[in-house]
Amino acid sequence: MDRPANQIREVSIERHYLKSSPGSVLYRCGETVVLCTASVSTSLPKWREGSGKGWVTAEYNMLPHSTSSRKQRDRGGKVDGRTTEIQRLIGRSLRAVVDLEALGELAVNIDCDVLQADGGTRTASITGGFIALVDAVESALPGSQIGDGPIRDYVAAISSGVIDNTVYLDLDYRLDSAADVDMNIVMTGAGRFVELQGTGEEATFDNDQLTQLLALGKQGIDQLIGLQKQALQR
Amino acid sequence: MDRPANQIREVSIERHYLKSSPGSVLYRCGETVVLCTASVSTSLPKWREGSGKGWVTAEYNMLPHSTSSRKQRDRGGKVDGRTTEIQRLIGRSLRAVVDLEALGELAVNIDCDVLQADGGTRTASITGGFIALVDAVESALPGSQIGDGPIRDYVAAISSGVIDNTVYLDLDYRLDSAADVDMNIVMTGAGRFVELQGTGEEATFDNDQLTQLLALGKQGIDQLIGLQKQALQR
Amino acid sequence: MDRPANQIREVSIERHYLKSSPGSVLYRCGETVVLCTASVSTSLPKWREGSGKGWVTAEYNMLPHSTSSRKQRDRGGKVDGRTTEIQRLIGRSLRAVVDLEALGELAVNIDCDVLQADGGTRTASITGGFIALVDAVESALPGSQIGDGPIRDYVAAISSGVIDNTVYLDLDYRLDSAADVDMNIVMTGAGRFVELQGTGEEATFDNDQLTQLLALGKQGIDQLIGLQKQALQR
Amino acid sequence: MDRPANQIREVSIERHYLKSSPGSVLYRCGETVVLCTASVSTSLPKWREGSGKGWVTAEYNMLPHSTSSRKQRDRGGKVDGRTTEIQRLIGRSLRAVVDLEALGELAVNIDCDVLQADGGTRTASITGGFIALVDAVESALPGSQIGDGPIRDYVAAISSGVIDNTVYLDLDYRLDSAADVDMNIVMTGAGRFVELQGTGEEATFDNDQLTQLLALGKQGIDQLIGLQKQALQR
Amino acid sequence: MDRPANQIREVSIERHYLKSSPGSVLYRCGETVVLCTASVSTSLPKWREGSGKGWVTAEYNMLPHSTSSRKQRDRGGKVDGRTTEIQRLIGRSLRAVVDLEALGELAVNIDCDVLQADGGTRTASITGGFIALVDAVESALPGSQIGDGPIRDYVAAISSGVIDNTVYLDLDYRLDSAADVDMNIVMTGAGRFVELQGTGEEATFDNDQLTQLLALGKQGIDQLIGLQKQALQR
Amino acid sequence: MDRPANQIREVSIERHYLKSSPGSVLYRCGETVVLCTASVSTSLPKWREGSGKGWVTAEYNMLPHSTSSRKQRDRGGKVDGRTTEIQRLIGRSLRAVVDLEALGELAVNIDCDVLQADGGTRTASITGGFIALVDAVESALPGSQIGDGPIRDYVAAISSGVIDNTVYLDLDYRLDSAADVDMNIVMTGAGRFVELQGTGEEATFDNDQLTQLLALGKQGIDQLIGLQKQALQR
Repeated sequence: MDRPANQIREVSIERHYLKSSPGSVLYRCGETVVLCTASVSTSLPKWREGSGKGWVTAEYNMLPHSTSSRKQRDRGGKVDGRTTEIQRLIGRSLRAVVDLEALGELAVNIDCDVLQADGGTRTASITGGFIALVDAVESALPGSQIGDGPIRDYVAAISSGVIDNTVYLDLDYRLDSAADVDMNIVMTGAGRFVELQGTGEEATFDNDQLTQLLALGKQGIDQLIGLQKQALQR
Repeated sequence: MDRPANQIREVSIERHYLKSSPGSVLYRCGETVVLCTASVSTSLPKWREGSGKGWVTAEYNMLPHSTSSRKQRDRGGKVDGRTTEIQRLIGRSLRAVVDLEALGELAVNIDCDVLQADGGTRTASITGGFIALVDAVESALPGSQIGDGPIRDYVAAISSGVIDNTVYLDLDYRLDSAADVDMNIVMTGAGRFVELQGTGEEATFDNDQLTQLLALGKQGIDQLIGLQKQALQR
Repeated sequence: MDRPANQIREVSIERHYLKSSPGSVLYRCGETVVLCTASVSTSLPKWREGSGKGWVTAEYNMLPHSTSSRKQRDRGGKVDGRTTEIQRLIGRSLRAVVDLEALGELAVNIDCDVLQADGGTRTASITGGFIALVDAVESALPGSQIGDGPIRDYVAAISSGVIDNTVYLDLDYRLDSAADVDMNIVMTGAGRFVELQGTGEEATFDNDQLTQLLALGKQGIDQLIGLQKQALQR
Repeated sequence: MDRPANQIREVSIERHYLKSSPGSVLYRCGETVVLCTASVSTSLPKWREGSGKGWVTAEYNMLPHSTSSRKQRDRGGKVDGRTTEIQRLIGRSLRAVVDLEALGELAVNIDCDVLQADGGTRTASITGGFIALVDAVESALPGSQIGDGPIRDYVAAISSGVIDNTVYLDLDYRLDSAADVDMNIVMTGAGRFVELQGTGEEATFDNDQLTQLLALGKQGIDQLIGLQKQALQR
Repeated sequence: MDRPANQIREVSIERHYLKSSPGSVLYRCGETVVLCTASVSTSLPKWREGSGKGWVTAEYNMLPHSTSSRKQRDRGGKVDGRTTEIQRLIGRSLRAVVDLEALGELAVNIDCDVLQADGGTRTASITGGFIALVDAVESALPGSQIGDGPIRDYVAAISSGVIDNTVYLDLDYRLDSAADVDMNIVMTGAGRFVELQGTGEEATFDNDQLTQLLALGKQGIDQLIGLQKQALQR
Repeated sequence: MDRPANQIREVSIERHYLKSSPGSVLYRCGETVVLCTASVSTSLPKWREGSGKGWVTAEYNMLPHSTSSRKQRDRGGKVDGRTTEIQRLIGRSLRAVVDLEALGELAVNIDCDVLQADGGTRTASITGGFIALVDAVESALPGSQIGDGPIRDYVAAISSGVIDNTVYLDLDYRLDSAADVDMNIVMTGAGRFVELQGTGEEATFDNDQLTQLLALGKQGIDQLIGLQKQALQR
């Protein structure tokens, strides 16, 4: 039976999945599975050294068998355009809720390795990556709470889209392939936008559709942030 | 004297700038100068061959001296993330107004070489690249008019942004550096969205600000499309 | 409490770990965790086409956070020497038990992605990769049993080593770092050698030590093949 | 109507073409158009540091649409042989008239971007690059005149060639394609050779032809240096 | 007439082959010809600096015409897997007989360039490279003898293999192509193993065969070390 | 005692140096040693296929220990500018004496591997490479003589230069380092120029010096072609 158009997929968040990283989350959203691991180091980018502020970056990668037809590894010295776009988006999204001054001169790296891809891997990477970020920062700077330490707020991401003039929430691969318009929304716990990317591939959208895409997105993000809070209480 | 916050920069569109390309436009927008050249070939990407449909792609490049501190050439086999993002955006934006079926099995490539950069190079590339596209398609398939041939509508792009809670239109480098939120809007002659990218770098924005950013953007795009129409009449 | 020198680590074999690959095994051996996924395709290497025979290859990769200090991704266009050595070893080891003629013109690729590394990742990749291989071949050529189809026998691998003149089985990271001599043994269910790699790093070993290293290895491999049989019965 | 065999093409030199570089020249020679921009920095090559002397280098690049069939960008990490040869030639030619000691520990980089190519792009790059060099050095070390500051003399370059036993000056693309022998000559204002490259592609030449090729070249260079002087007076 | 199965090929060792390197050996073994050159420098790898100890590495390369069908040069930025395996093996083998502490903070590099390949190029590189190593170390630290300076013992390498159930010593290309099992053995003058690599390509071997392969190998290595001693006396 | 300024270095030409290539020459010129090997294949470059004509190319490479301070191998995916220039020069020079139509659709590749470098490696590669070319062409198309088969004439190369206003022939490394002007001359047996490259590095030269440089070069080339004839008679 089909999921209703305004409902998100089932989410599971498994913290401390691996022992080798301070932040390590297995994030599942329907059939999409992303392993988010975070680490903290003191090797800041050159331009950031001595600024008193930290930095947060992300790397995104799809394992070869994450899709049903094997995808080649990014070993040719040329990371493809889609990958770099997604990496930059994840980094910006997480930085938006980090007080980089309060973090001090630390670099946090979030690795998002997609074990299985069924649509929404970039939004899953942000939502799951946030938990890994919190755990890694907690391991480096213990004792702070969200809101009053380097982490200023929650952040989560979701997609919405238009298919045959109907607006859908949380597109899996089947929906995504059929969508005329695709919107990715990144929002904080306070309901403020961090990032908004609406794209019509060989299609366009009007103001009314925009309003619906945003409303549905906000509703999904509220649910995801609820799940993040639950996961972090354990 | 400063330009008012809701006014676009002065634009000049020089068609047929070089003899070596069928579409060749020197696009100036304030101190930003982009050379947009377009060519038509029959070498479609592999996955497109035999589909009966064409394709439109773009390449974006900043000349080393386009900025005041020399930027190294992209020769290391590694096109940087920002460049690939912009190239993909230009391609998608132009494809949105091309009837790829009516184009037939032709590939159009738009090269956007930034000779001088003072902010807004990606939106200038779209707005100027559209003129080069029209001229190149006209040279390959003469006689069609915008709206009833492969080119279905006009398309233009502009940025808006928030600086200290004021909303600005058409950010030059100085404004862009100061902006908390940066919005790129791509719109058709019919006023429909093609692409919307709103980003808060270490900042966020609320729904009211979004409404203002979009309104100002629409106003700027209407002006740019007016200038495109004028340029194409000559 | 320490594991005795002649005892292997605890092993767990989770088959069908992901839905996107026909063969997909999460293999744990102590704190070492390897995700082995296998797929079957008809794209043989050029030199193999039209031979009537198949081919088996492997790719090996450590996820950045598999070790406690983050390892950079192999994206520079330069796969490091250790990685290529291991990939070739895994491929040769698995091919030794595959009847490539009976396989027909099919290519099997085994991806071994190390999620967590605590020594013995190459031997874990072989032992776990074998299960993924069996499942993938079964999905392509259903109904055959080990021994009378393309898979002629079981194959597993283990390490042994010399530390301060004592011989140890199944070196984890701590033991491996201390070892003067390091032996990797790959063996079939019938007790025949597939590969033997004994290395003294700034050290050497004599004939007696060789005999002990091999005896201990054989004992470990017998246990591993027992566990493989159990896993494949489910 | 055809240009006589011993006459150079029409040249135009537009100084201060862009605001972003201290030296910036749009050089046209017939249908060949090269944008030469020069900048001065203190980042000398490693081996030059602390020597008290400066350095001059050049980069050469053809824009994709500079030729009628689009040329791919040099982004594959492999600058082609022709490009590196030309870059080295431009650098050597300009250095020959620079007193590197008088320049002091400064690095001057000349970027020669070919906007349109109709033969003679390397010689145009030298002749136009010289003007950009003078303007850039003047901006860094104001007040010196050619001959008594770091710039010791003028330098210009031209080609000559043999077609069906006739000697031609300043080969455009059509002539160059027909030439059996191709000579590039770089000369100073004082009439001294800086560089001489005579090449027979699947052809050879004798001493008499050499004498004619050089004589015609000298005559062309005298004219070019006259034009350089004029341009620099403005 | 064929060489008996238990006999090594004719070996010639030409020391001081080139003037440009302190250690420079032309090593011939049948039709296999390897130029081994060694140099000593103070540029240790980063992780070795300040340790008081030296390091020994090797590079291996086949000249394009070393095989009858021309092999492409390794210029694509991607050293192939076989090459890296061999380089690492040569380095480890030579380090096993070097007292890195007695060497002090020096780096020795052995370049093994195969001029002609007829099987056994990696073992020839080790056996010939040892002589180059001795000569280079002697030039940097004169006066020491093997056994009581940085060089603790001799080291040589040879292959053995199984063809149709017969065991052969020192496989040339013809034998190597026919071999089911291939063993490379590296041993010191004292008869201790440094490295043992037995591989069945689509084949396996049992314990009896292993014993024969090792016995034959030891006999060959004794002969090679005799030849090394002779060469070093001159 | 020093060699007189107008005298070439001692040359030795050892044909059939390796068995693996049809043309294989060890060329020595003073302390410069180049191994030139040539092979013939039917894999022409794409643009040459079906033209009825052949092609000749060259690769040039310095072995790491050819100079006294070890030079790194060209493995970074980036052949340096000097190497590509030299490769192109060798190819053009040899093609000038080959009747590519008479050669038929064959590709000849000349590999020039510098074993020891003491100046003049590019001219040695041409002079020695010519012998390898002749031997390889003879092996593919037996029975033809120079002048009446695909090889139309002899070709050789030499350098001359200006040091402190004296003109020298055949610069070795010591002379080359001191030279203000460096001239490479490639000439046929009939005394016609193939290539002429005169370069002043931070220096210039006048017409008189040019005349002397050419005269001395011609004299050297006459001697070299005499030696080539002698070598080919054996």
